[in-house]
Amino acid sequence: MAQQHLEPTDPTARAVTGEALEGYLRAQATEFLRALRLHRETGTTNGAEESVDAARALRRSARRISGSLHTFRPLLDADWSESMRPELAWLSGTLGLEHACEARLERLLLALHRLSGSSMFPAQSLASGTAGSGPPVPATPERGNLTVGAAKAGALLERQLTLARTRAHSTALQALGSSRFHAVADKIAVLASEVPLTPAARTTDLRALATAAEDRLLAAVGALPLVTAGHPYNAEALVHGLSPDPAPHPQDGPWHQVRLLLRLHRYAREVLYVDGVPVDVRLLTAGQALNRHRDASEAAAAAAQAARTPRIAPATAYALGVLHADQRHEVEAARFAFQQAWQQQKVHAP
Amino acid sequence: MAQQHLEPTDPTARAVTGEALEGYLRAQATEFLRALRLHRETGTTNGAEESVDAARALRRSARRISGSLHTFRPLLDADWSESMRPELAWLSGTLGLEHACEARLERLLLALHRLSGSSMFPAQSLASGTAGSGPPVPATPERGNLTVGAAKAGALLERQLTLARTRAHSTALQALGSSRFHAVADKIAVLASEVPLTPAARTTDLRALATAAEDRLLAAVGALPLVTAGHPYNAEALVHGLSPDPAPHPQDGPWHQVRLLLRLHRYAREVLYVDGVPVDVRLLTAGQALNRHRDASEAAAAAAQAARTPRIAPATAYALGVLHADQRHEVEAARFAFQQAWQQQKVHAP
Repeated sequence: MAQQHLEPTDPTARAVTGEALEGYLRAQATEFLRALRLHRETGTTNGAEESVDAARALRRSARRISGSLHTFRPLLDADWSESMRPELAWLSGTLGLEHACEARLERLLLALHRLSGSSMFPAQSLASGTAGSGPPVPATPERGNLTVGAAKAGALLERQLTLARTRAHSTALQALGSSRFHAVADKIAVLASEVPLTPAARTTDLRALATAAEDRLLAAVGALPLVTAGHPYNAEALVHGLSPDPAPHPQDGPWHQVRLLLRLHRYAREVLYVDGVPVDVRLLTAGQALNRHRDASEAAAAAAQAARTPRIAPATAYALGVLHADQRHEVEAARFAFQQAWQQQKVHAP
Repeated sequence: MAQQHLEPTDPTARAVTGEALEGYLRAQATEFLRALRLHRETGTTNGAEESVDAARALRRSARRISGSLHTFRPLLDADWSESMRPELAWLSGTLGLEHACEARLERLLLALHRLSGSSMFPAQSLASGTAGSGPPVPATPERGNLTVGAAKAGALLERQLTLARTRAHSTALQALGSSRFHAVADKIAVLASEVPLTPAARTTDLRALATAAEDRLLAAVGALPLVTAGHPYNAEALVHGLSPDPAPHPQDGPWHQVRLLLRLHRYAREVLYVDGVPVDVRLLTAGQALNRHRDASEAAAAAAQAARTPRIAPATAYALGVLHADQRHEVEAARFAFQQAWQQQKVHAP
């Protein structure tokens, strides 16, 4: 959508009022209802891919509505906003979990495949999760040991993440059938025709609030250790990798926070540019780096978690240790990529 | 030594003949004999540090003599050269092993310390090798599991590498008392006063041979995957990290080879610059990066090897897997550092 438009009139040159917010929220609500209809249709006919697309579209508009409620809060009915936001957060969280489990498993199996040497480990044999169809050359017990470890680690992760995914799927289905969901859907149906703006909103300029959102982003980025991140191989991401703390990576938190603030900034731009959002490649690149950061961080945690499974073989644990470190390395790489994208942005900005 | 001199007359501007080689070899032979005397004195009085220094000085001159024999082979008596080189290689290999084991253990324990979070794991508790004096907070079984894993991995590595070091120490002592060693020492004593140059050597310009050594270096560097190495976080070094091959990193070979060729180039420069070698910071930096590459590569192999110990706990194996991957990242980081140093060299070269 955004790619089809060139830079429109500069939104800083003219006022953009609450009417733009109204239009945006109505459009997102309509989109939500369309996706919900699609999801119900495909859900019953069991069309997996269309159902996944519909769920993604649902999450997509729920996030945008929620983000706009946050950024432009003073322009909307306070009680309504306060009641909507936790419901939207619950909804996109619940709907996103299944996809997250699936993506995490795929990421971890691809990494195992890469780490095992592609000639020895066809991806299918790992994905099948059976150690029996694994590597053909365990020439000595020592060799076979580590080899089987990678295959067993893959099988273990597949079992655990498939179980998590199945649970997430059930939870999402239950959620979509719940009265709590119907209440949200009803509210969004109302939003599609009637946005609860405050009396003054229609003549209030949105730009101050959008700028405040951008300022929060800039402040959060400013607090990131970007100098360190810009030095490749700083080995920061794996520090405390063997710490006894079950959540040993508080260092990831500020990056996750920037990811959310960058998203809010992107949505605010969508509201402001009523005639189409100009593509900002650097913003896209920075956002992709932060997504990769989040994915790798969670994949690393899943590998560490799997290593805590009782009674696993040492070779399996070794493979999970290598995998954990590999994903923490990915975390560090993502920070570097973000730093590079962000520096470019600053250089090219007017 | 080199730092005290400024750039002397350009060696390309005047001929440097076999006489320079003669002077260099005599000086290195004298240095070898001095170090040997020191080693015998300190070895009997058990002065550990001086003994280590003396062994290092022995290796240092043995490498230089050996390297010069290789680079300037046509200028030296062929039979003599052929008989000397394997003996010098044996000697510096045998004498270097103890130090290598010690450095490897130190590198691995430091890495474990870093990975465990400094507040939880004082380096001493790891270095002491006793799991009992380890982490104070195994609050839950799962926490304690991974914590104990790091401490146990440290203790295991310490046992294995200390054993290897003790063996290397005995082997070195035996070597220094052997008739084989006495024969080498006798030959080097002769070399200190009488270098077996060919009849033509004294009037032959050394520069063509030194240039040939540099060309071999440049060709080997040219064959390195420097474009990949120059892209941070290319994840190349850990590829095949879980391969069943017991020597899964043939990719390290060309880098090790460049390290040796860089050393030969450095020694050839020492021969050419008879009035003192000008410091080449970039050459030094590149060499240090390749040393780090070698050290990390061998440390990673030692961690993988330790993981093959029968009947270790899964938590120990997990910690060794993280450690292995960490050191392979170090390998990748060293390649990046080499690429950076080498690029600079090319830009600044005339």
